[in-house]
Amino acid sequence: MNEAAFDACVDAHADEFLAQLIELCRVPSVAAEGGPAMARAAGLVSSLCRWAGVSADLVPTDGGPPIVLGQAGDGPRRLLIYNHYDVQPPDPLSEWLSPPFEPTVRDGILYARGVADNKGNLVARLAAARAYQETHGRLPLRLTFVLEGEEEVGSPHLDGFARAHADLLRAQEGCIWEAGYKDEDERPAASLGLKGILAVELHARTADVDAHSAAGGLYPNAIWRLTEALSTLRAADGTVLIDGLLDHVRPPTAAQMAMLERLPYDAAAVQRRMGIRGFLGGLTGVPALRRLMFEPTVTINGILGGYTGPGSKTVIPSRAMAKLDIRLVPDLTPELALQLLRDHLARRGFDDVTVIPAEGGLMPARTDPSAPIVGVVLAVLEEVYGVAPNVYPSMAGSGPMYQLCQAYGIPAISIGVGWAHSHTHAPNESVRVADFIAGIKVMGRVYGRFADQVI
Amino acid sequence: MNEAAFDACVDAHADEFLAQLIELCRVPSVAAEGGPAMARAAGLVSSLCRWAGVSADLVPTDGGPPIVLGQAGDGPRRLLIYNHYDVQPPDPLSEWLSPPFEPTVRDGILYARGVADNKGNLVARLAAARAYQETHGRLPLRLTFVLEGEEEVGSPHLDGFARAHADLLRAQEGCIWEAGYKDEDERPAASLGLKGILAVELHARTADVDAHSAAGGLYPNAIWRLTEALSTLRAADGTVLIDGLLDHVRPPTAAQMAMLERLPYDAAAVQRRMGIRGFLGGLTGVPALRRLMFEPTVTINGILGGYTGPGSKTVIPSRAMAKLDIRLVPDLTPELALQLLRDHLARRGFDDVTVIPAEGGLMPARTDPSAPIVGVVLAVLEEVYGVAPNVYPSMAGSGPMYQLCQAYGIPAISIGVGWAHSHTHAPNESVRVADFIAGIKVMGRVYGRFADQVI
Repeated sequence: MNEAAFDACVDAHADEFLAQLIELCRVPSVAAEGGPAMARAAGLVSSLCRWAGVSADLVPTDGGPPIVLGQAGDGPRRLLIYNHYDVQPPDPLSEWLSPPFEPTVRDGILYARGVADNKGNLVARLAAARAYQETHGRLPLRLTFVLEGEEEVGSPHLDGFARAHADLLRAQEGCIWEAGYKDEDERPAASLGLKGILAVELHARTADVDAHSAAGGLYPNAIWRLTEALSTLRAADGTVLIDGLLDHVRPPTAAQMAMLERLPYDAAAVQRRMGIRGFLGGLTGVPALRRLMFEPTVTINGILGGYTGPGSKTVIPSRAMAKLDIRLVPDLTPELALQLLRDHLARRGFDDVTVIPAEGGLMPARTDPSAPIVGVVLAVLEEVYGVAPNVYPSMAGSGPMYQLCQAYGIPAISIGVGWAHSHTHAPNESVRVADFIAGIKVMGRVYGRFADQVI
Repeated sequence: MNEAAFDACVDAHADEFLAQLIELCRVPSVAAEGGPAMARAAGLVSSLCRWAGVSADLVPTDGGPPIVLGQAGDGPRRLLIYNHYDVQPPDPLSEWLSPPFEPTVRDGILYARGVADNKGNLVARLAAARAYQETHGRLPLRLTFVLEGEEEVGSPHLDGFARAHADLLRAQEGCIWEAGYKDEDERPAASLGLKGILAVELHARTADVDAHSAAGGLYPNAIWRLTEALSTLRAADGTVLIDGLLDHVRPPTAAQMAMLERLPYDAAAVQRRMGIRGFLGGLTGVPALRRLMFEPTVTINGILGGYTGPGSKTVIPSRAMAKLDIRLVPDLTPELALQLLRDHLARRGFDDVTVIPAEGGLMPARTDPSAPIVGVVLAVLEEVYGVAPNVYPSMAGSGPMYQLCQAYGIPAISIGVGWAHSHTHAPNESVRVADFIAGIKVMGRVYGRFADQVI
């Protein structure tokens, strides 16, 4: 491929590419809320595919938004691209400096819900296909785009999609996974795995009706019960206390520990940026990275019970609820973690606390670092950015990599256009415009190099 | 007094008295919410006073609803009546069988928010003054009504009112306190004290922004922190664990323990009625009564943090909040309990958890059982109901008895028109219409007998 010509084409169309991203970010495609915005986003993604010279099929799901299946190019090699067009809920709204669905550029940074996770990457990869075809007339490999709308709610329909397209998936030779973020040291990051996840609600019910708190010394209280149950699940230092869960954790190999040793991690910088005083258990350096990538976690995402309005209400609440996510590493599965959680609570007499799993638990996944697509991507990253990338044996986050890739033998590597301050899942999510443009140049080279590579 | 004539007058006007109660219960005078309903309720209470032949002054408070000061009658004896026209918030609304501010009679039971706590008693005592004057032409003692609108938010202005009316209060020889409820055995109850109360909010703040829960193993989480702090405050059996708090608890005397031994308490019936499986710590009988009356409690009234909407949000919340009340017995004061709570949390490193006290902490109060008003009331109750009343050395609830009575040497006894299923502070609050009418007959006799009694 003529990389200089490709880069010139990208630079010439930079404003147009940014405009496409902004248009997509205007759609409030919050998967947890659903509604007409999901179909609107899917339609817009289809249009973007066609704009990029990629055929687009809307594959319906049973009750969810459609999966956009895009195909383009020709040649002996096959590369899968996975992204999602849904986003996290934007609240707390009051902390956004500009509205989450009114994309705004300030000082070269584009702010919008979903711009880093995951619309910036989705548009960059399509824009690279368009620029490649504009520069060279044709794509020299067969690209398959799987662009779903339920990643942020656990991808409940992706597994069914994958089973229905098993032959197509088995033919893929590599996958570019959804997202990546430059580290604090400004090096691009590439990740070779994901944690799994189990999301649950715990519901405590201790009486038929709320009662006057004068009886607070005698009557059970749903919030106290929920608090007591929660306090058995995790130590204050972050260690998971669910009976037996840690027995299923595969320890990192020596090679993986060596990868951790090479990674930069400025814990103090992260803490300053987030406004936090220290990490759980006082972890820093390699132990902090090990926890992020090789240890399960239990996080309370939300809690609600009783009277929370203005003033006081002296009541004993009969019901309370908490939302939790449990991040999983090999060899934990969502089913196993759910059973261990239920057994743990039952063993302690918490039969007044009901565990309700959310749909879409995810398996953990890991990619072999010697896979050809890994070598191509790492070389391209070093060339475009002028520095060696940081290679993570896993991300700390979760995604359906197992369902779409590992189950079909596809090695997957995750890269993207985010930066260290992208604030994913939080107010003021952002990408830098320059990173978005550089990400298009990375993807064009990946298409060209992977097509040429002899396996 | 001619008690037969008085009773006939009450029976003849029963429908009118009930209609007055229903009209007052239509006003949503939720003190925690404030708003124009509070002034409307105060105005209606003034009208009720005049209807009852009681002069009424609206005594303004600094930022709160006015206190209605009612005066009637003449004679050497002086009796104070304390009630309140404010009510608890009605939520959860979905559990009401009829709307909380649309009073509804079903099967002889009147359902409305505030009908038991405390509007039924307020109206019964005024109705008794009206019927007494209609029957006998005049009231034979000097009645002073103090009818406030902030009892459910801790009576923040009653102390100032009391100080401003100290001479009037010092002249009082007894007080009929706000409320009472028949027990499960259908005997009327009379109470000789109240617990104090301290209401607080705990606010946890662990970061400047919410974060992606992928970092849940490292970043502090406001809900986890709040949960951890709460779990240090109380044992699962209900024992308060706040450092040093129990050191200030005055144990019951032998006489008080004897009163407990005489009280009926069908724990199983209470549990069936509330739909609960057992009391904290497995308490029943005298140990349960002792906890209700002689031990402090810590109750979580409400909790809120993070994402509580539909679906999942994989977020680490940076803020969380809980509302608690701490019930106090002699010799605990709200100020002391607040200091002990703050010291307890600070000692455990919870300096990311802020304790914000609500206005209107209340002192505990106890009445000497040998006071003349106690003897009059107990005799009247036995006569009207045909059974000896159950006498409680204290109620489990709280109220400003210390501020209004004990501080001025006034012995106070609490009785009222509630029943065992009144569901105060909960959905479907109620009184039986027959109990309301009987309560008017009780009060007429109390007025007559206390006027005649030689002290």
